[in-house]
Amino acid sequence: MSNNNRNFGAGPGKIPDEVLKEAQLEFLSYQNIGFSVTELSHRSEAYAKINQEAQDDLRELLNVPSNYKILFLHGGGQGLFSAVAMNLIGENGTANYAVAGIWSKIAANEAKKYGRIDLVFPEPDSGTIPAINDWTINPKASYLYYCDNETIQGIEFPFVPDSKEVPLVADMSSNLLTRKFDVSKFGVIIAAVQKNLGTAGLGIVIIKDTLLDKALNICPSILNFKLINEYESILNTPPIFSIYMFGKVLKWIKNQGGLDKMEQLSIQKSQLLYNTLKQSNGFYHNNIPEQNRSRINVPFRINKGDVDMENKFLKEAEERKLFQLKGHKLVGGIRVSMNNAVTCEDVQVLVEFMKEFQQENQ
Amino acid sequence: MSNNNRNFGAGPGKIPDEVLKEAQLEFLSYQNIGFSVTELSHRSEAYAKINQEAQDDLRELLNVPSNYKILFLHGGGQGLFSAVAMNLIGENGTANYAVAGIWSKIAANEAKKYGRIDLVFPEPDSGTIPAINDWTINPKASYLYYCDNETIQGIEFPFVPDSKEVPLVADMSSNLLTRKFDVSKFGVIIAAVQKNLGTAGLGIVIIKDTLLDKALNICPSILNFKLINEYESILNTPPIFSIYMFGKVLKWIKNQGGLDKMEQLSIQKSQLLYNTLKQSNGFYHNNIPEQNRSRINVPFRINKGDVDMENKFLKEAEERKLFQLKGHKLVGGIRVSMNNAVTCEDVQVLVEFMKEFQQENQ
Repeated sequence: MSNNNRNFGAGPGKIPDEVLKEAQLEFLSYQNIGFSVTELSHRSEAYAKINQEAQDDLRELLNVPSNYKILFLHGGGQGLFSAVAMNLIGENGTANYAVAGIWSKIAANEAKKYGRIDLVFPEPDSGTIPAINDWTINPKASYLYYCDNETIQGIEFPFVPDSKEVPLVADMSSNLLTRKFDVSKFGVIIAAVQKNLGTAGLGIVIIKDTLLDKALNICPSILNFKLINEYESILNTPPIFSIYMFGKVLKWIKNQGGLDKMEQLSIQKSQLLYNTLKQSNGFYHNNIPEQNRSRINVPFRINKGDVDMENKFLKEAEERKLFQLKGHKLVGGIRVSMNNAVTCEDVQVLVEFMKEFQQENQ
Repeated sequence: MSNNNRNFGAGPGKIPDEVLKEAQLEFLSYQNIGFSVTELSHRSEAYAKINQEAQDDLRELLNVPSNYKILFLHGGGQGLFSAVAMNLIGENGTANYAVAGIWSKIAANEAKKYGRIDLVFPEPDSGTIPAINDWTINPKASYLYYCDNETIQGIEFPFVPDSKEVPLVADMSSNLLTRKFDVSKFGVIIAAVQKNLGTAGLGIVIIKDTLLDKALNICPSILNFKLINEYESILNTPPIFSIYMFGKVLKWIKNQGGLDKMEQLSIQKSQLLYNTLKQSNGFYHNNIPEQNRSRINVPFRINKGDVDMENKFLKEAEERKLFQLKGHKLVGGIRVSMNNAVTCEDVQVLVEFMKEFQQENQ
């Protein structure tokens, strides 16, 4: 947001300035129709267009094949965790989970309500993702689930797991639209929008059409993929404002140069930061093995976990208008999240501060 | 919204002009903190305050007793329908439903996924709600459910059903905060916000604390009342913008004079409209018995269901900037929704148009 504040929050995170300004400008009268988008009927032509364009733009940006459906759900990430299990595990089913961090663990625990959940490798404590050959995948599992980017520990998968015949399900809440990938390798992709994609209240599902018809009877209608698909994501009143903002963010990404540009910037920003950690000779320390480090979320400790020093860092950062740098309470320390809306300049200003802070406090 | 447009939509419906203008003004920087409310972390102090104040203001306006909890959920009305059943029916349970219109029927059908649902009276086809002595209430039912105002047919309960020892559950999505009532008569009150209370994406639950701990194991976390209560409605990232707008609407109601004022205006507006129907000598016809007519949603047919005439009415109404008057597709005709944000002047302008239209077309 304007006035030189820089927001490094993981999520809800920064939204592009251009998107916020556009939304503000038309807040009282959406496209001069005389009503606010917040008052728009979900049965209106204006909303049908918002709904359709958001789907079309996401399809275009990710090159989603025509046999995949795009769904909009209430409920955010936690709702999606339940929805995945209830829609895919089948009666008396079993599923495999690759738990490499906290979000995949929460998803696995939620899924245990609905069937048998087996982990494909023991939970790593070091941030090391085992090589795919070391995964124990049950060929009869209804699906194999993983979280592509773990925001809390700062772990990102450098490969798409080869799940053979088992449908692959990925949570991409924190890195969708930050790099190119082949959607056709997946059965289902889920993402809550409040990180890279907009404002809270909306979950996105991209699903291969052959997987639509497997929901358990006890699945609530608002989480039922088949039903939501039949209603083209207007089963009940959708989270209209979140979908509207999501649509604006998609158009912003297209205007910036699409996924090529987002991926390039993401590499550039994360390299700048990781290089600064490396050059600090241990003053700033991230413990994730290099090949599994996240481009999006970079947690680190200062002086081997000196909490007083970390608090000093956070305080001085805020004086420089560098915000939302506190690490997640489960891991402590500092966390820098570099969502799409965070600019190279934002990261440049941050690393300059980090270098100065080290000089003054080492 | 400004520029003399008048919005009679049932929901999403009109939001008070003052609320929209305030939200627009601070859209780029919420309370001058330098970030948009759409970017606000759900773990921030600023959000904690929004979350708490919305609960406090609702508690104050409705005089909610201290042994009742207020919860904010993702998912809107349909999500609440599932949540009620999963949280209250209990293992192998049974529930009673008073189905007097389409919304209670949808709720009952959703509940059938989770237990045995018995109707307390045969579905009325005339809009007549049977007297409470004619209801067959199973004293062992886990709860008795009804919808206090049916937006599609325009039916409103003129009494609070006496459910004896059975916890009473009411859907007040379309008339909460339009009249005073005694919360302590209820076990649970649910409401989606996009009608009288704000913008879509949020469901409200008011629940007696003794009912919090009965959820089925298969209840998704985002719909689990006990869990949401434990996390003070910040279990996962909540629909922040909807809660923020809801909070603003509550403050607007307080500034207008609270529930006394809302109830008085609601009576005034609906009397003006029903009198116009009556004086039309059948040109405009609403078929709901007088004692069960809704103060909020008034459906009617023109010339005994003359569709061409109704379309002419809608077209000419729009030329006068009177919008969202088309009846729900299940019942056809015209529907006037008079949510709290609809002013007496709005209704005055509408009934003047109706009288002129009748004179010209009878």
